[in-house]
Amino acid sequence: MRRTSRERKDKVTVKDMVVDMARRAREASRVLALQDTGAKNRALDLIADRIEAEAGRIQAENMKDVEAARTAGLSASMIDRLTLSDKILASMAGGLRDVAALPDPVGEVTGMWTRPNGLQVGRVRIPLGVIGFIYESRPNVTVDAAALCLKSGNAVILKGGSEAIHSNLALAGIIGQALEQAGLPPAAVQVIPTTDRAAVNEMLALDDLIDLIIPRGGEGLIRFVTENSRIPVLKHYKGVCHVYVDQSADLDMAVRIAFNSKVQRPGVCNALETLLVAEAEADAFLPRAAEALEGAGVELRCCPEALLRLPGRKAAVESDWPAEFLDLILAVKVVSGLEEALDHIARYSSQHTEAIVTSDYERARAFLARVDSCVVLVNASTRFSDGGELGLGAEIGINTSKLHAFGPMGLVELTTTKFIVFGSGQIRG
Amino acid sequence: MRRTSRERKDKVTVKDMVVDMARRAREASRVLALQDTGAKNRALDLIADRIEAEAGRIQAENMKDVEAARTAGLSASMIDRLTLSDKILASMAGGLRDVAALPDPVGEVTGMWTRPNGLQVGRVRIPLGVIGFIYESRPNVTVDAAALCLKSGNAVILKGGSEAIHSNLALAGIIGQALEQAGLPPAAVQVIPTTDRAAVNEMLALDDLIDLIIPRGGEGLIRFVTENSRIPVLKHYKGVCHVYVDQSADLDMAVRIAFNSKVQRPGVCNALETLLVAEAEADAFLPRAAEALEGAGVELRCCPEALLRLPGRKAAVESDWPAEFLDLILAVKVVSGLEEALDHIARYSSQHTEAIVTSDYERARAFLARVDSCVVLVNASTRFSDGGELGLGAEIGINTSKLHAFGPMGLVELTTTKFIVFGSGQIRG
Repeated sequence: MRRTSRERKDKVTVKDMVVDMARRAREASRVLALQDTGAKNRALDLIADRIEAEAGRIQAENMKDVEAARTAGLSASMIDRLTLSDKILASMAGGLRDVAALPDPVGEVTGMWTRPNGLQVGRVRIPLGVIGFIYESRPNVTVDAAALCLKSGNAVILKGGSEAIHSNLALAGIIGQALEQAGLPPAAVQVIPTTDRAAVNEMLALDDLIDLIIPRGGEGLIRFVTENSRIPVLKHYKGVCHVYVDQSADLDMAVRIAFNSKVQRPGVCNALETLLVAEAEADAFLPRAAEALEGAGVELRCCPEALLRLPGRKAAVESDWPAEFLDLILAVKVVSGLEEALDHIARYSSQHTEAIVTSDYERARAFLARVDSCVVLVNASTRFSDGGELGLGAEIGINTSKLHAFGPMGLVELTTTKFIVFGSGQIRG
Repeated sequence: MRRTSRERKDKVTVKDMVVDMARRAREASRVLALQDTGAKNRALDLIADRIEAEAGRIQAENMKDVEAARTAGLSASMIDRLTLSDKILASMAGGLRDVAALPDPVGEVTGMWTRPNGLQVGRVRIPLGVIGFIYESRPNVTVDAAALCLKSGNAVILKGGSEAIHSNLALAGIIGQALEQAGLPPAAVQVIPTTDRAAVNEMLALDDLIDLIIPRGGEGLIRFVTENSRIPVLKHYKGVCHVYVDQSADLDMAVRIAFNSKVQRPGVCNALETLLVAEAEADAFLPRAAEALEGAGVELRCCPEALLRLPGRKAAVESDWPAEFLDLILAVKVVSGLEEALDHIARYSSQHTEAIVTSDYERARAFLARVDSCVVLVNASTRFSDGGELGLGAEIGINTSKLHAFGPMGLVELTTTKFIVFGSGQIRG
């Protein structure tokens, strides 16, 4: 009995804390929405300065997390991601200054027109309000997300991974001081100061205080958030990206693009996972592609038709087609042509990123029109599917739901528009 | 036991049916997304022609609903909304032809730019995919919603109120025949052929097949849908709209705007519910406003300060401030000035529509900037907060969540954009 009542008490405490943070975030968002660009940029620069000035203190807190991770036996790559090295701290400060240099989307009038009755109607960009950002281990994400939310005029509540709690709280302290120094409400950026996962559930229920949830992490985290949220969630589950080598493709280009898409950074969501090859080019293309890819250590998992051209390789099984390997593994399938490629993509893609390599005008157009993914490329690497590379300036995430912002999301995608109407006494007849 | 097993069987059947409809809608959406404007317009015109040609058959089915409503003792206004009179049928056909005449948002390239590496990056408008539309009694909504979804290239699954089931199925039959005649997939517009509410729950779980849910109806329906959906929901719960009469207002204009906002159509979401008056104008304005409003049968519910100017009226209670009366009732509050008006609006508004009547430049600007509602007006009636009146051409609903489309939604708001990238062999370094 004592334990149950204790548990209940803890739960109430977590709930109260999260609700209180969300209320303060809501108030801060009202102030932040009205700040001019200069005020927001000053705050971003001050955060950058303080991160540099207090690197030692941040790293001391970070070391607590790193030691706990070592004690808990986390993998070397996990510990690497957790570690705030001098280089990472410098890139965090640089990232803040880069965001300060980006154009401010807030206040842009995206259109204005006059109605027959003389009403002048416009749409003006405004911040979304309060964003809940839920993520896993990397503490540098704390600063990246805070910078983008701040610049777009949104308050943000950050819930990082429990293994980064000391690092995140140290960064939150520094951000809060910088905000205060800049004359902005410190509640504009808040880190939830607990590792209790119940805090996530409490956040996801606050649809009257939080406008948007962005989860970033593994598929498990993202599914949990999506299934438990009453607040709109922008996210992608995974990136099962395809390159289709058309019968008209320049094969040198096709090898280069397939190689870059798969090998340049295999552990990310815009890396290539399945290579589709038109039958007419399979004999010429596959051995050359295999030589390049296998030279970089890529394991090929081949359909029967591909195996004919690449004897001795591993046979693909059904579960390879929808797989996001995030590793040096590539599924390879020979298709009769564009139609079969489109069918395969419609069936297995995650609506993230697909590319065609072709020299045929009509098939390039057909691929662009008919692939239902947020980024569709002709004759370019899938690795360009990224907010920065596409020219958005920065990226807070990639959304594969059709709502609000399909695809990589930058500062503009952290805003919405409201209607403003200038009248001179009009009434409706 | 027999009953339980029967119930389980029914549930499985409803689920199977809804999943099957959603799958066919998804397939139809792929075809519809690629149709040119002419093909979609032809289908809209054919639906209009058939509605006119088969008016008798539609009205015979409608009569079954009307008679059932009479037997069930529904109110006269409910029966009126349910009835497909000659006039309503003519306006449905006219509405279809109006939608055919609107510009097609699909295929618009909303921007295109070239990256330093020569990649040409653009954003092109595409349909959302499959829309689930859940509504209450009026069967004409079936046709309105189908028209807007069709024109914007979206398949739609319609779940109307049980009291309109015969009317809706008759209309669905006609729409399906017209789609077939136009060479479009009939599954592009489907009406769920059951009055079983379980069908709604089944729909709301299909986040892999349905892209967007739009509920239209009372607050109870909308809360139910929001709380049970895994699919993004665009909606507003209610419209608690304010007019603030500033100390600089032209009082003739202020009376005219308050009167029009409240009286012209009191039962709709953009009707005025609370009138705020700057103290400096309260003596001069309130008696004149009361004369006009009370002359039209409006009951005033006044704050103590307003009661001083309008003795003998009803005193407002706390629950009047957040109330959507949808009736000839108006809450009236005297405020010290703009700041108190903004505070009141921030606290009680539903983020729908607010207007200021003023001749002061700075206060007009401050009101536009600081009111966090999807439509903010200066010197115009709140009744203009409507997709058609604002110039969107038509309206599928009004969304007071910040995501995707804040405010009245027309055809453009039923689309999203994807990134298209034209390369010449670029790879990432």
